[in-house]
Amino acid sequence: MSEVPQAIGWGEDGRCVHLLDQTLLPEHERKLEIRDADGMAEAITSLRVRGAPAIGIAGAMGMVLGMERLIEADPDADRATVLEEVSRLWTLLHDTRPTGRNLAWALDRVAHAVRTADEATAEALAGRARAEADAILQEDRQLCDRIGDAGLEVFAGGEPRVLTHCNAGALATGGIGTALAPIYKAHARGQRVQVLACETRPVLQGARLTAWELSRAGVPVTAITDSMAGDAMRRGRVDLVIVGADAVAANGDVVNKIGTYGLAVLANHHGIPFFVAMPYTTVDRSTSSGEEVPIELRSEGELRQLGGREILAADAAAWNPAFDVTPHRSVTAFITDQGVIRPPYGPRLAKLTEGHGPETGRFRGVGGAS
Amino acid sequence: MSEVPQAIGWGEDGRCVHLLDQTLLPEHERKLEIRDADGMAEAITSLRVRGAPAIGIAGAMGMVLGMERLIEADPDADRATVLEEVSRLWTLLHDTRPTGRNLAWALDRVAHAVRTADEATAEALAGRARAEADAILQEDRQLCDRIGDAGLEVFAGGEPRVLTHCNAGALATGGIGTALAPIYKAHARGQRVQVLACETRPVLQGARLTAWELSRAGVPVTAITDSMAGDAMRRGRVDLVIVGADAVAANGDVVNKIGTYGLAVLANHHGIPFFVAMPYTTVDRSTSSGEEVPIELRSEGELRQLGGREILAADAAAWNPAFDVTPHRSVTAFITDQGVIRPPYGPRLAKLTEGHGPETGRFRGVGGAS
Repeated sequence: MSEVPQAIGWGEDGRCVHLLDQTLLPEHERKLEIRDADGMAEAITSLRVRGAPAIGIAGAMGMVLGMERLIEADPDADRATVLEEVSRLWTLLHDTRPTGRNLAWALDRVAHAVRTADEATAEALAGRARAEADAILQEDRQLCDRIGDAGLEVFAGGEPRVLTHCNAGALATGGIGTALAPIYKAHARGQRVQVLACETRPVLQGARLTAWELSRAGVPVTAITDSMAGDAMRRGRVDLVIVGADAVAANGDVVNKIGTYGLAVLANHHGIPFFVAMPYTTVDRSTSSGEEVPIELRSEGELRQLGGREILAADAAAWNPAFDVTPHRSVTAFITDQGVIRPPYGPRLAKLTEGHGPETGRFRGVGGAS
Repeated sequence: MSEVPQAIGWGEDGRCVHLLDQTLLPEHERKLEIRDADGMAEAITSLRVRGAPAIGIAGAMGMVLGMERLIEADPDADRATVLEEVSRLWTLLHDTRPTGRNLAWALDRVAHAVRTADEATAEALAGRARAEADAILQEDRQLCDRIGDAGLEVFAGGEPRVLTHCNAGALATGGIGTALAPIYKAHARGQRVQVLACETRPVLQGARLTAWELSRAGVPVTAITDSMAGDAMRRGRVDLVIVGADAVAANGDVVNKIGTYGLAVLANHHGIPFFVAMPYTTVDRSTSSGEEVPIELRSEGELRQLGGREILAADAAAWNPAFDVTPHRSVTAFITDQGVIRPPYGPRLAKLTEGHGPETGRFRGVGGAS
């Protein structure tokens, strides 16, 4: 069965959320049935769902489940009781990944929809919550689709060979991903696209997730260690690079998974186009350049242990920045839901986000959302 | 106890070889006592000793152990019996890593010393073998020392921060290593040197071995994933790069552990000097450029499994070249046993190997010796 896997969605009866347990991939493909907010909180905390957009959607859906379970227990709950429960659910779900801005944003959006609703019955309020969570999911799917369509422009005819990093695919979003969206679109129209997936140490999202979802969808994919990217480029095995972004500053500097910057330098050196795919919501207008972004340092343990064994001497230190900054000059173009954007980036990224306040920046996950 | 660890050496009574079991590092520091050729063959096959020079030394010592055990069992063995045993030992030990040229070279050297000896008694012949194995070990130690002394030239005063890749240290040689030799020499003279060790996927020699031996010797070392090198350079955390080499072509192209090429491009981009440390024996005069060197493709399994778990979907492919080629133009200088060599490399590398036939290229390990 060749199809793009779906990270998250409503169950058939609408009473539960289906969640692909990403901690078990690629060994086991297990769909969890999440029935309440506690279950969703556990799933987010345990990284069963990850990727900034997908976490936001999961949080919103978790709040809906929580409200519906309240109503089952107390069908006559009044408005005040419902709003009190919404506050409790917000905290419960938010604290699962407290630094993920996208999660807070999605929870705020659902809570706001409930609080500002005219309806008085608990059932009607839950309906508003569900509608808002659905809207978040549908909007995310549409953004992914539009990025995919826009990205077709950068694939010349023939059989492009794309190198990517980390996982900016279906597993990280509600739809077909960001960096992987153009690949899925090209594949769907019958174009042969081959992908080189950097395994992406330390957490190996490229090997474990990107290679899995692409091969599941029937797209030929080959995993390499991150250190092999330069050699692959030198040998002429890469036509273009597409990566996602955790945040893009107003000047076009890109904050993304550690290793992205090195790939950009290597691509530039070899004359290989370097693309960044993202929805408009990734642009952080309040940040003028990438230098302003504080980079999360993650646990040394990710470099010290592997498969339960110590791989680093106790006396040796480890340095584990989660993200790096790629200067806008290294980016050939941005592939966005509103088309392909080429330099000068400042004014064009500003136009991309026009009509959206800086505080509406959706799904920006620098810090926590891997 | 701060001292440079020793990978291999004779036991106190001279009847066994002490070998640090590198498969257990860094979790356990266990010294094996190898007493016969079978034990040595097992140790080489199981990668308990690795690194081209160290494997050559291990093979030579294994042959000595085998001859001495023969004499213990049969003190009156005649010359023909001894030579027959030498042939058997050559095959036994050689077949442990059949593609490692350095191993064949060291075994040939001991066998040749025995076959061309005037002595007739078994004991005298074994003495010749032991003298030759000792010479191989001592020569390797001297080469390492000379590389270390030469390398001091590239350390400006102050506190240089060196980035290295894989393990070209004491654990790979009979002495203090190649790439790490200048670091140990600087440390010994009281200069503060800090090292960033790329972990070196897929086999993690940088994390498991380089970080261990440096911290064991009291040199401050910090491990990073290979993908972090570019970011470390961009942030100004690297003053110079020193790597080893598995082979250097006549024009100065460097064949070394996969990832070396990418580090060279990144170093060049940031204006950071990129040095290659090696003994004269690493130069392969019969190869005019790096493009001629066939690169060993290793097992996909190294990218598929980690700590006993599958990390790659069964339908996804993996590409696992063991080495890459760094063009001579990217090399700032070679640090050799005969001093620091700067461009033009062709004539200067030729001079380095003058008086040594191309077939004497020692310890060239492209293919097998990791």
